Amino acid sequence: MNIIRMVDANDMEDIAIGGAVLGTGGGGDPHVGKLMAQQAIRKYGPVKLMDVMELADDALVVPVCMMGAPTVMTEKLPQGDELMNAFRALEAVMGRKIDAVLCGEAGGVNSTTPFVVAASSGLPLIDGDGMGRAYPELQMVTFTLHGVSATPMVLCDDKGNSLVLETVSNAWTERLARAATIEMGGSALLAFYPMSGAVAKKAVVAGTLSLCARIGETLRAARAEHSDPVKALVDLLGAKTLFHGRIMDIERRTEGGFARGKATLTGVEDWRGQTLRLDFQNEFLIAESDGKVLATTPDLIAVVEADSGAPVTTDSLKYGQRLMALAWPCNPLWRTPGGIELVGPRYFKYDHDYVPFE
Amino acid sequence: MNIIRMVDANDMEDIAIGGAVLGTGGGGDPHVGKLMAQQAIRKYGPVKLMDVMELADDALVVPVCMMGAPTVMTEKLPQGDELMNAFRALEAVMGRKIDAVLCGEAGGVNSTTPFVVAASSGLPLIDGDGMGRAYPELQMVTFTLHGVSATPMVLCDDKGNSLVLETVSNAWTERLARAATIEMGGSALLAFYPMSGAVAKKAVVAGTLSLCARIGETLRAARAEHSDPVKALVDLLGAKTLFHGRIMDIERRTEGGFARGKATLTGVEDWRGQTLRLDFQNEFLIAESDGKVLATTPDLIAVVEADSGAPVTTDSLKYGQRLMALAWPCNPLWRTPGGIELVGPRYFKYDHDYVPFE
Repeated sequence: MNIIRMVDANDMEDIAIGGAVLGTGGGGDPHVGKLMAQQAIRKYGPVKLMDVMELADDALVVPVCMMGAPTVMTEKLPQGDELMNAFRALEAVMGRKIDAVLCGEAGGVNSTTPFVVAASSGLPLIDGDGMGRAYPELQMVTFTLHGVSATPMVLCDDKGNSLVLETVSNAWTERLARAATIEMGGSALLAFYPMSGAVAKKAVVAGTLSLCARIGETLRAARAEHSDPVKALVDLLGAKTLFHGRIMDIERRTEGGFARGKATLTGVEDWRGQTLRLDFQNEFLIAESDGKVLATTPDLIAVVEADSGAPVTTDSLKYGQRLMALAWPCNPLWRTPGGIELVGPRYFKYDHDYVPFE
Repeated sequence: MNIIRMVDANDMEDIAIGGAVLGTGGGGDPHVGKLMAQQAIRKYGPVKLMDVMELADDALVVPVCMMGAPTVMTEKLPQGDELMNAFRALEAVMGRKIDAVLCGEAGGVNSTTPFVVAASSGLPLIDGDGMGRAYPELQMVTFTLHGVSATPMVLCDDKGNSLVLETVSNAWTERLARAATIEMGGSALLAFYPMSGAVAKKAVVAGTLSLCARIGETLRAARAEHSDPVKALVDLLGAKTLFHGRIMDIERRTEGGFARGKATLTGVEDWRGQTLRLDFQNEFLIAESDGKVLATTPDLIAVVEADSGAPVTTDSLKYGQRLMALAWPCNPLWRTPGGIELVGPRYFKYDHDYVPFE
């Protein structure tokens, strides 16, 4: 096994920052997952990060994640044990040993939770995920585009309840798991999408965890050198700066479990006299300036503090903040017709088609 | 194995009528379950009804039932296959063959659904249940009073989705299964409370299925002989006639998935000048006359047509109907402190204590 790197407790700081950037405003605060991962690494030792292409074709790979409202997840700090319970229960259902841990969602809190299971089990963690970003629903993964079933899936809560789901589609997995998670108090731990190494090689968005680490390192280095952190981030991601401005207006509502809303920014410097409207549903999904769509889901839209480059989540947007909006291309899989159907603007009930932001 | 009787498709007519009487106004219309059972019996042969005391101590016994809103259950006529899917899936989870089928609830639709599984599997059906009547929630069974866990439980829908639940209490089973059932469209099929023969001998309310059959036979015979069906029913059940009157007022509301309400009757014959108030939550739970409580849950309160003795469900109560209200004692287990806590008036949010109706 070729180890890309060994991830220790300190490395989790950078990875969590990177996870917040790829979280594109949503996905929950990686701080909580970082604390869980650091605790597990201190107890069991560093995590072996592994290239997906190194997997044996017949290896069994299992993604783990937290599900629920970010606010609840961060209030009810879960014990790493509960993730391990889900993982081990799925292993029992599969009737064979799992060979590697996978990350379902590299953005937000779930960029860090798989490190808990990898450290606790001693198994390698694949450097990649099923989104290359954050999305709010279980079926919104590249695994779905490759015909991988989300089930058998195990869902556990912090009280000791657990469910094994077998569903007829990944959309049904989302519905039933969502209902159970709400009943369990708003947060649950999952092991799902069991897949072979051969499938993982095709279905995984590769390299996203080491990208998370590089994002964190880059921002940290730029601040240490007193150079421009946002410029360093833009260069690393191959991103475009969509806008630089101040928040003039925020509109929020909670609908169907989503934190939906709009933020309006008025431009400064090169963008003086212009306005930007950001539409969000947990994640930033659409950036529009004076009637022109600049970027839409599935491309990534992140908002960072103009000075520090620190990522800003949709729920921490405040009047008067000076921010920069960045966009960069999503994984090519999301730009296929199947990808657009699963996570394009129309799925989120916006009345326009996907336009690649370039 | 000592067979009490072989139940054929015609016998299901009487059993369904008896199930409606023990349904005490709720539990869903046994007509649907009867059709399913008749179909299965015609295809696979009669059902062997077995005395619980004949079970080997190490036998594995599994109750099956439908869960959900009675109106939905009867609109979405399930195929017997879905009950068999739940049953076989629980057998796989238990890792051993099931030896006998059990009835969770002898009142309402679930007095007949276990016949589907017994006929389809060729296994004997135990003559008994976990209530001796109908109740709306999964934990409301004598099995709970004997410390039997509702899980592992399998819950299936008509689309092919299934869940295996493991919960920390039977109240949690109810919460999670209820949430899943609602998401599945309001109706689901269950196999749960797996127990040994030794436990079943203590925890089962024995004889309720043959009582259902006798109730149906008794009403049918009385009508054929032009004798008084209500009197025959009262004699069979050791019941007391609480009231004879006409419905003057009905008040209904749906709250938390319950069909709650009150019906007021004005007396005729011996009860002229008096009024009766029946409180219901799916089932009739309290009968009160002019400020005096005549009977309360867990004792059984049934309402029948004064002429035919035909049982009347809470959702078919209509202004002007001439009805008789009967009450008879519940199984002694329900009168223990644990039983009263689980299904007494206070659990249903009525502000008074249980008073044995005698």
